[in-house]
Amino acid sequence: MDKLRVLAADVGGTNIRAAWVDDLGNMGDERRIQADLSRDDVGEADLIRILADFFQAYLDDIPGIQAIGLGFPGFFLGDSGVLAASPNLPQLLDVALAEQLSNMLSLPVLVQNDALCAALGEQRFGAAKGEANLLHITLGTGVGGGLILHHQAYTGESGMAMEFGHLRVQTGVSARRCGCGGLGCVEAYASSTAIQAIYAELKGETLTTKVIYQRACEGDAVARRVFEEAGASLGQAIAEAVKLLDIHTLTISGGLLGAWDILHPALMQALNQHLISPLKGKVKVLPSTLNDAAGILGAAAMALAECD
Amino acid sequence: MDKLRVLAADVGGTNIRAAWVDDLGNMGDERRIQADLSRDDVGEADLIRILADFFQAYLDDIPGIQAIGLGFPGFFLGDSGVLAASPNLPQLLDVALAEQLSNMLSLPVLVQNDALCAALGEQRFGAAKGEANLLHITLGTGVGGGLILHHQAYTGESGMAMEFGHLRVQTGVSARRCGCGGLGCVEAYASSTAIQAIYAELKGETLTTKVIYQRACEGDAVARRVFEEAGASLGQAIAEAVKLLDIHTLTISGGLLGAWDILHPALMQALNQHLISPLKGKVKVLPSTLNDAAGILGAAAMALAECD
Repeated sequence: MDKLRVLAADVGGTNIRAAWVDDLGNMGDERRIQADLSRDDVGEADLIRILADFFQAYLDDIPGIQAIGLGFPGFFLGDSGVLAASPNLPQLLDVALAEQLSNMLSLPVLVQNDALCAALGEQRFGAAKGEANLLHITLGTGVGGGLILHHQAYTGESGMAMEFGHLRVQTGVSARRCGCGGLGCVEAYASSTAIQAIYAELKGETLTTKVIYQRACEGDAVARRVFEEAGASLGQAIAEAVKLLDIHTLTISGGLLGAWDILHPALMQALNQHLISPLKGKVKVLPSTLNDAAGILGAAAMALAECD
Repeated sequence: MDKLRVLAADVGGTNIRAAWVDDLGNMGDERRIQADLSRDDVGEADLIRILADFFQAYLDDIPGIQAIGLGFPGFFLGDSGVLAASPNLPQLLDVALAEQLSNMLSLPVLVQNDALCAALGEQRFGAAKGEANLLHITLGTGVGGGLILHHQAYTGESGMAMEFGHLRVQTGVSARRCGCGGLGCVEAYASSTAIQAIYAELKGETLTTKVIYQRACEGDAVARRVFEEAGASLGQAIAEAVKLLDIHTLTISGGLLGAWDILHPALMQALNQHLISPLKGKVKVLPSTLNDAAGILGAAAMALAECD
């Protein structure tokens, strides 16, 4: 077949997901394997073997794949495809992931940070289609970010750019402690972990984010306030990023999008309150149109660009 | 004469300064004219005429100039040389400064934001010589910033990138009011204006920054604390920028460099306290080696690059 198709994959905490993607963003033949890549006995050879075996089996079954794109939770320098470090796999440093996989599979392999892949997905196929500059924020158990500048993935000097979740939005004694050890990070207010913890402190009940959101919709004022404050914290952190980067398009994906109707107005109010005057009103913050497919479609976008 | 020389100029609030610069960073034949470019009756034609007359007189007297570089307090989109807007001259919008001057003077003319010129100066001739990525901070009556990424001046989508002075370092009721109208901006703690205001509030005396620094050196604990808190605020704001940009080299210029021996340790302590773990210890913050010549040498760097 002549149609351009790539294999795109997304490595999560406990599973790896793959599908083919074509240049229109169509996906098919999705597969998942369970693979716990956060165990501390996973060595470099294990990681490469798990990925290569999974991809090879896919390639054996599905014809016409011309390149492979992979989103991985770790730090990558530029478009080198070298995993500099990964918080989940601290024992692995400077792993030439793309090069080793490419040699084993005899196809071009592109690898990038997972949040950055989500940004690339939104830019090629999603809410920010065609934008040259994009800050994409992932709202899940944590808060992550991926930045595209002048159509290029921006990784920083050590692959650790866009630690958006650790921007500070509160100072002083009442600031909440973040998982990173810092005080007042936006992740301590606007992640689902934070929403559950804050609600539990205020109401004495530990509930899922979804149930807290349902309560907010049913008139629970505390539940609503927790989401509004999450939105306001996000808006404040986005204002800081915009003051530095003068970037006008942001997209947001992740589980918390379910509460967009409460989050978004609070977010926009705080954003425009905290921006300097000439930037007020210039910034749009869009919900992802791809959501949990953003990462896999961004991995595909890298592979497709390699084939163009 | 064969040696490559450019005319470089820097527009300040009340005067314009120009000198020739060669490709080794030597400067000579410096001239200044008084010109109040913050008056609201200065039109586009006036601005162009003032600059063109000053440059033409210089070119008539000094032979061998091959291009002109200009640092200007305003917002420029990319390397277009178009002044999008200027806080000092709000009546002027979208002025094709570089193009008009180039047509009148029959030489290439490059124009860029003044803080960004200072960054370019430090990168070509100063403390950050040869760095691909640099965040330069100017500490004067206000706090400004200029960013270089991958050897390119970064201006953002509307020329307003690096509003570093308006990053928030304090939230809550005790946060200080900034000149921009916001609360808790780093400029409200770490500019010379702020240092004078804070010292006056604490001690009831309005003194120059220089005298406050002398008092700090002579054992005035309040004076010392004001500089230490300015340094800590700067370190905190730098941490925010580094968390987003993963940039490892910063330079600082401006009048407050005179207090570097107090500012720098406080700054580095706060910076490393607020950075996420993997970035701690990776970031160097250097005093400018060019100081008030940084802007003019950066303007020269743009013009020299045009001739290369």
